[in-house]
Amino acid sequence: MSATDLKASTSMSKWVYNFGGGNSDGDASMKNLLGGKGANLAEMASLGLPVPPGFTLTTEVCTAYYDNAKTYPEGLAAEVDAAVAKIGTTVGKGFGDQSNPLLVSVRSGARASMPGMMDTVLNLGLNDETVKGLAVLSGDERFAYDSYRRFIQMYSDVVLGVDHYSFEEILDDYKEVNDKFLDTDLTAADWKKIIAGYKEVIARDLGRPFPQDVTEQLWGAIDAVFGSWMNDRANTYRRLNNIHAAWGTAVSVQAMVFGNMGETSATGVAFTRDPSTGENAYYGEFLINAQGEDVVAGIRTPQPLTLKAKSEMGETADSLEEAMPGTFKELTDVFAKLEKHYRDMQDIEFTIQEGKLWMLQTRAGKRTAKAALKIAVDMCEDGLITQEEAVMRVEPGSLDQLLHPSLDPDAPRKMILKGLPASPGAASGEVVFNSDEAERLAQEGRKVMLVRVETSPEDIHGMHAAAGIVTARGGMTSHAAVVARGMGRPCVCGAGDLKIEKDANSFSVAGQTVQKGEIITIDGATGEVYLGEVKTTKPELSGDFGKLMAWADQSRRMGVRANAETPLDAKTAREFGAEGIGLCRTEHMFFEAERIVAVREMILAEDRGGREAALAKLLPMQRADFTDLFKVMAGLPVTVRLLDPPLHEFLPHSDAEIEEVAKASGINPEELKTRAHKLQEFNPMLGHRGCRLGVSYPEIYEMQARAIIEAACDVVKESGETIVPEIMIPLVATKKELAILKERIEEIAADVLRERGVELDYLIGTMIELPRAALMADKIAEDAAFFSFGTNDLTQTTFGLSRDDAGSFLPAYIRAGVLEQDPFVSLDQEGVGQLIEIAAERGRKTRADIKLGICGEHGGDPASIHFCEQVGLDYVSCSPYRVPIARLTAAQSALAAKK
Amino acid sequence: MSATDLKASTSMSKWVYNFGGGNSDGDASMKNLLGGKGANLAEMASLGLPVPPGFTLTTEVCTAYYDNAKTYPEGLAAEVDAAVAKIGTTVGKGFGDQSNPLLVSVRSGARASMPGMMDTVLNLGLNDETVKGLAVLSGDERFAYDSYRRFIQMYSDVVLGVDHYSFEEILDDYKEVNDKFLDTDLTAADWKKIIAGYKEVIARDLGRPFPQDVTEQLWGAIDAVFGSWMNDRANTYRRLNNIHAAWGTAVSVQAMVFGNMGETSATGVAFTRDPSTGENAYYGEFLINAQGEDVVAGIRTPQPLTLKAKSEMGETADSLEEAMPGTFKELTDVFAKLEKHYRDMQDIEFTIQEGKLWMLQTRAGKRTAKAALKIAVDMCEDGLITQEEAVMRVEPGSLDQLLHPSLDPDAPRKMILKGLPASPGAASGEVVFNSDEAERLAQEGRKVMLVRVETSPEDIHGMHAAAGIVTARGGMTSHAAVVARGMGRPCVCGAGDLKIEKDANSFSVAGQTVQKGEIITIDGATGEVYLGEVKTTKPELSGDFGKLMAWADQSRRMGVRANAETPLDAKTAREFGAEGIGLCRTEHMFFEAERIVAVREMILAEDRGGREAALAKLLPMQRADFTDLFKVMAGLPVTVRLLDPPLHEFLPHSDAEIEEVAKASGINPEELKTRAHKLQEFNPMLGHRGCRLGVSYPEIYEMQARAIIEAACDVVKESGETIVPEIMIPLVATKKELAILKERIEEIAADVLRERGVELDYLIGTMIELPRAALMADKIAEDAAFFSFGTNDLTQTTFGLSRDDAGSFLPAYIRAGVLEQDPFVSLDQEGVGQLIEIAAERGRKTRADIKLGICGEHGGDPASIHFCEQVGLDYVSCSPYRVPIARLTAAQSALAAKK
Repeated sequence: MSATDLKASTSMSKWVYNFGGGNSDGDASMKNLLGGKGANLAEMASLGLPVPPGFTLTTEVCTAYYDNAKTYPEGLAAEVDAAVAKIGTTVGKGFGDQSNPLLVSVRSGARASMPGMMDTVLNLGLNDETVKGLAVLSGDERFAYDSYRRFIQMYSDVVLGVDHYSFEEILDDYKEVNDKFLDTDLTAADWKKIIAGYKEVIARDLGRPFPQDVTEQLWGAIDAVFGSWMNDRANTYRRLNNIHAAWGTAVSVQAMVFGNMGETSATGVAFTRDPSTGENAYYGEFLINAQGEDVVAGIRTPQPLTLKAKSEMGETADSLEEAMPGTFKELTDVFAKLEKHYRDMQDIEFTIQEGKLWMLQTRAGKRTAKAALKIAVDMCEDGLITQEEAVMRVEPGSLDQLLHPSLDPDAPRKMILKGLPASPGAASGEVVFNSDEAERLAQEGRKVMLVRVETSPEDIHGMHAAAGIVTARGGMTSHAAVVARGMGRPCVCGAGDLKIEKDANSFSVAGQTVQKGEIITIDGATGEVYLGEVKTTKPELSGDFGKLMAWADQSRRMGVRANAETPLDAKTAREFGAEGIGLCRTEHMFFEAERIVAVREMILAEDRGGREAALAKLLPMQRADFTDLFKVMAGLPVTVRLLDPPLHEFLPHSDAEIEEVAKASGINPEELKTRAHKLQEFNPMLGHRGCRLGVSYPEIYEMQARAIIEAACDVVKESGETIVPEIMIPLVATKKELAILKERIEEIAADVLRERGVELDYLIGTMIELPRAALMADKIAEDAAFFSFGTNDLTQTTFGLSRDDAGSFLPAYIRAGVLEQDPFVSLDQEGVGQLIEIAAERGRKTRADIKLGICGEHGGDPASIHFCEQVGLDYVSCSPYRVPIARLTAAQSALAAKK
Repeated sequence: MSATDLKASTSMSKWVYNFGGGNSDGDASMKNLLGGKGANLAEMASLGLPVPPGFTLTTEVCTAYYDNAKTYPEGLAAEVDAAVAKIGTTVGKGFGDQSNPLLVSVRSGARASMPGMMDTVLNLGLNDETVKGLAVLSGDERFAYDSYRRFIQMYSDVVLGVDHYSFEEILDDYKEVNDKFLDTDLTAADWKKIIAGYKEVIARDLGRPFPQDVTEQLWGAIDAVFGSWMNDRANTYRRLNNIHAAWGTAVSVQAMVFGNMGETSATGVAFTRDPSTGENAYYGEFLINAQGEDVVAGIRTPQPLTLKAKSEMGETADSLEEAMPGTFKELTDVFAKLEKHYRDMQDIEFTIQEGKLWMLQTRAGKRTAKAALKIAVDMCEDGLITQEEAVMRVEPGSLDQLLHPSLDPDAPRKMILKGLPASPGAASGEVVFNSDEAERLAQEGRKVMLVRVETSPEDIHGMHAAAGIVTARGGMTSHAAVVARGMGRPCVCGAGDLKIEKDANSFSVAGQTVQKGEIITIDGATGEVYLGEVKTTKPELSGDFGKLMAWADQSRRMGVRANAETPLDAKTAREFGAEGIGLCRTEHMFFEAERIVAVREMILAEDRGGREAALAKLLPMQRADFTDLFKVMAGLPVTVRLLDPPLHEFLPHSDAEIEEVAKASGINPEELKTRAHKLQEFNPMLGHRGCRLGVSYPEIYEMQARAIIEAACDVVKESGETIVPEIMIPLVATKKELAILKERIEEIAADVLRERGVELDYLIGTMIELPRAALMADKIAEDAAFFSFGTNDLTQTTFGLSRDDAGSFLPAYIRAGVLEQDPFVSLDQEGVGQLIEIAAERGRKTRADIKLGICGEHGGDPASIHFCEQVGLDYVSCSPYRVPIARLTAAQSALAAKK
């Protein structure tokens, strides 16, 4: 029911829902009305579990409260009175009854968990008179006055807004003056004096005494909960977590039970399975003679629940299983009942009062990725949940933890630097500062850590050789980050405090110097850099992982491909379940040492003849690249993007490199420098690149098309496998560009097929990565067999925002709430997404069977993949290490769409 | 009628339309069916004018011919036979009749003039027998054989495809061997021998004799015309001029008349008014005893039509008025009749055969801008056309010629260099190579020509001081070009051959060196650069100009504003009729010598405090800027764009400049260099600029907002005039950016209004210059009182194309037909235009009265202005010198929309 529906039905509303005492007005499905806490308490009570009776003021009350200038709806007070009386009847006590007082807790509870909200108030109903009754009833005066002072403290802090330091000061002073050390050293008489001190502070601060009327206390607490719904903290939290203010919060009022009434009382928390490993074993801890807050406070060491846990942890204190075997049995029955009922692992709070078990809360338990995986698979295999439900239970992003090595949590470490968590995984290696050296040392079998100010395409070989990469500059989508993620190398980026010394033999950070050759360890999942080697643990891709992935694949509609160029990356991708290559960036192939000279020769050639001579040298190398790739991916589609970056990216910088090109080409160095200078651009991202190169220098794409088709022919001949190369033209803005290049490629292909005598299907398609291409998609589709959305460039142009330059203000933008997240990490669905929708719709209008995919960084981002499912794309393509994440997300999206 | 309609009606078509001999089947409205030539011949014949009889094969025949594998429709042959016979009856001759032969001309004629098409064939119907008849009939054997050889030559060239050099060779050889010099020296006997030679060549080349059958001749010519419709030249011309192949061409066949039958025969061309000045005086030339081609060939000097022209030109040869007074009278009656009928100045071809006047063609005459203006105004004042028609008669782009000085066409000149015609106008000045020197010399009263490799915002003062600008690099929309057009300075850009020597004391071009201080002259309308001073003529903004502009303003719906920053530019704009400022780029104000240091101090400051100190120095200067501007534009709206370019654009380059900033700010130079380096960007266009600066450094926009509102208050107080400043936020991509900045500006404004005690309306709006802004316009409009389309940036981002870098391939793209024109010059309506439409529609949906304008370079481009009218924008804003063009175009667009 939406907030509007709620409002519409206000006039005949039921404002208060009772639970406990044998029945409940609500149930677990009513989270929107009763909040998560209230709904689950009602549900547990309905299941016949021992829940202290109580009632919930609905979220509707909250909405009405704000809609009517902070006044409560008519009839609410009467309903609350009746509900309080009902609790009293159930537990045989009276609210405010001096001899037999009913005490209650008051808790907030919205439909989504909101840690920024008001905390709990316990022991409400105590005053100067009822405390005496409690003392008599419990036979423990100290307990009664301790409860009273706790209540005053909590209520004053949470409801009255009195600074809690005042109370702490009084308590500390009292202990010091009276030579007491622990709270437990204080007697009832001590607490009475302290309470008197508390009340003085309150009277002084507020100008009125601490409320003695229990109904006034209750309404004060209810007011405070509803008031907290609109405080700054809550507003901020809601904005960040997409929770609507109109949803409102509920308030649950519940009879108090006490775990601190002696040795037969206790309080504890438990998980029905191990939230860390997912093992099907009870997990939790408890304290004898304690209240819930004591378990959390950590003053006393909690005891384990089970004998098994006790022995595994080498504890000496009794487990609950030993201390209270009967109650333990009762508790485990509850566990079983709750898991079966909720069909998920539960996180539970319980209290044992004088031997009687009470359930205070249950909810789905938070868990690690590993546990989520194991629990989902186990529950499915036990028939508790379906395969589809199992697939929905694992957060795809969390798989990242499972696919990479991570730091051993117990290993000692010394952090020296923190940057951005650019590519997950942990690794150690000796510091090197340049890519050639990284490659050389790696070939000697040494593990190296490449440390750079920033990386460029010329560092590819060094990054490949390194165990990990650290850069001083660049954001989450800088060159280093993107390439590292693609290769599955851990990477820490934008570590601004890192200063590489001029001689490039050391780096310094906050006064500390690290020499070349020293070992450092990085954690790419946190962005942390440690001095020395820190032990890492290998990923465990257990059988559960494989099972869940197989189930996911059964539910999935979209294909999942990988972005990969090298046979190694392609193999990794295939192992991770990629169903093809969605993006092979041919420029990455150009940087290898043996061929970069020929590439430069081609770029700096004076005329077409010169370029063709250089390209002739490149053809066999490029053909070999594709041959290797097609072999690895045999039977699967491979999308090859023709040369994309502006030519100056390949140019030599140093005089030695220029000399090398001069020698190879026979052109004098000065002339080469002039030509190189001419190629420089103000805004390379918006310059002479992509298909613009293909139009200006047809011979480059002709060479690449020939290499692709020749390689495909050769592999078909040799292996007999089907190879369907998909040739992709980048940066198309007009139909004509594609038409011109397509015609040329078709001519080349026809020549090659004739020469090789092979029959072969191939596709020609285009990137949609410019707003204009998206807008003109109907025209462009006339010549394109497929569209692949290049969402990196599309985001750059739609926002007018360079990925490389955004670092200077994007963090501030996200802080200021201008952007909710980095649009290069998660697709800007409302802006860039519109263009994708337009292009998909128009492309299909022209060509109903056009293949649509995405190959930007967003192809591995869960939220973006959901969007792709909604728009109906055919596949997503991402870096190899994100393929499992994409498979799982695609499955979840498809399942969500089915609903 | 469209091509489709034509096809649909094919079965019952009439293929041939007769004209002449007292009546016509067609008329001038049937250009689509009969072509321009055929329709006008029919019209003239209907008017009772003396038109040699003939007929037109319709464009429908052409369409049918191509639709049916180059075969003619059934019944066509019979219709042609009948039409030929009808001509014969009318003129009393027979086609192929040996004693009384009918000769005809065959001409192509599409609905739009196509110079790339087939030429005319004259004298068709001559063969070895009919030539004898013609000799007898005309009593001039030489005339007959001369006509025959002309026919063979033309027909062979145009229809048979025989190389015309063969014929020229035969003729030249014959003359040389026989010692003849001029064609007129040749007798009938000579021509007979030459004809024999011609026929031999044809028989040898084609393997068959020259066709003697006159019907075969006629169909050959018809085939050739229809065939030429699809030749490469025609296809290219059509593509470039947006003419559809499906329109087809018509063929007109017409009885020959001869201006070369002696002293009572003549041929000529005439304009009903002077096409150069527009003066209402007959203008034209003729030759006695000549055919049309002789007038054009220029071997004999043609004679003027009128006595007046004769005396003005100081000619001695008789005018037609003197030589053939009767025919002259007849001709001027025709002129009057045609002008009155067509209501426009006509371009006419006529022939006088033995004293009888024949009209061969009439069409609207091409004319200069000056003439167009004068003719339109004169005709309107004479009641021939309405004011609205007068407005439609002048091509807005041509006004550029009238608004700037131009080179005296008769002045001698020596061209040394050619670049792009970047900003119209002609000017001379002494060469200087830097802006400071330009300013200094100009202050001494010297005229300087600023010569730079390229210009940057730091050259603004030098460009302002210079009479003109020449750059070696940059395209039509480079900084130099854009700024020069804005200032109305002539400019030649991208003169690639220009090399500025390292010492910057001279430049060289093709071996020639020009020293600093030498005078050069440039013509910004042609891109030509001359050595020395070339005489220029001043623009004549005569009364006609004012009248036409006033009429235009009456028809106009859209407002016209100017892009201007300085009081001088604003004054110019107002003089040219601007109705406000649509774009005041505040960054231009930052470069003046006294303030650039403060600007740099602000940019390089360590913290907000440092920035605020520097901004406090800038505030009074900025306020003074706006005060001046508001005074000039009093009563009109002024849109001020807050700072837009990335801060590094303002940074010092030289050590001396850095030293200066160091001194002013107290920060050491090394630190300054480091900070400057940090601000560098890979793609400044997509970087930290526009409102991103406003969000990161609120104090900058706060200073600017304060300066604007303070200035407005001061001017209101002083003058009592209404001032409505429109504060414009650049580069908005999200609603939130605008919301944040708007709130801050409103706070500042409220403060200032309170301080100054003034009531003032002001608007806050935004540029729409990013695709995302266009897509999110509905949301953005919630906070924007107006949108101004920044089509420069919008084009850059929509195409993913940097204006500064496009020069390297854009010309090739236009040549290859990928783009029809530079999208930075004329709006890409089909791509970028979609975003404008989307934004306009969505903006209005949110805010029905949102003010919509355009302030990119396109605001002064006629085709783009038409688009703005179609989308319903409220105003266009352009550089001051283009304001009249925009006014006229806007009027024409509004008139076109009314239809």
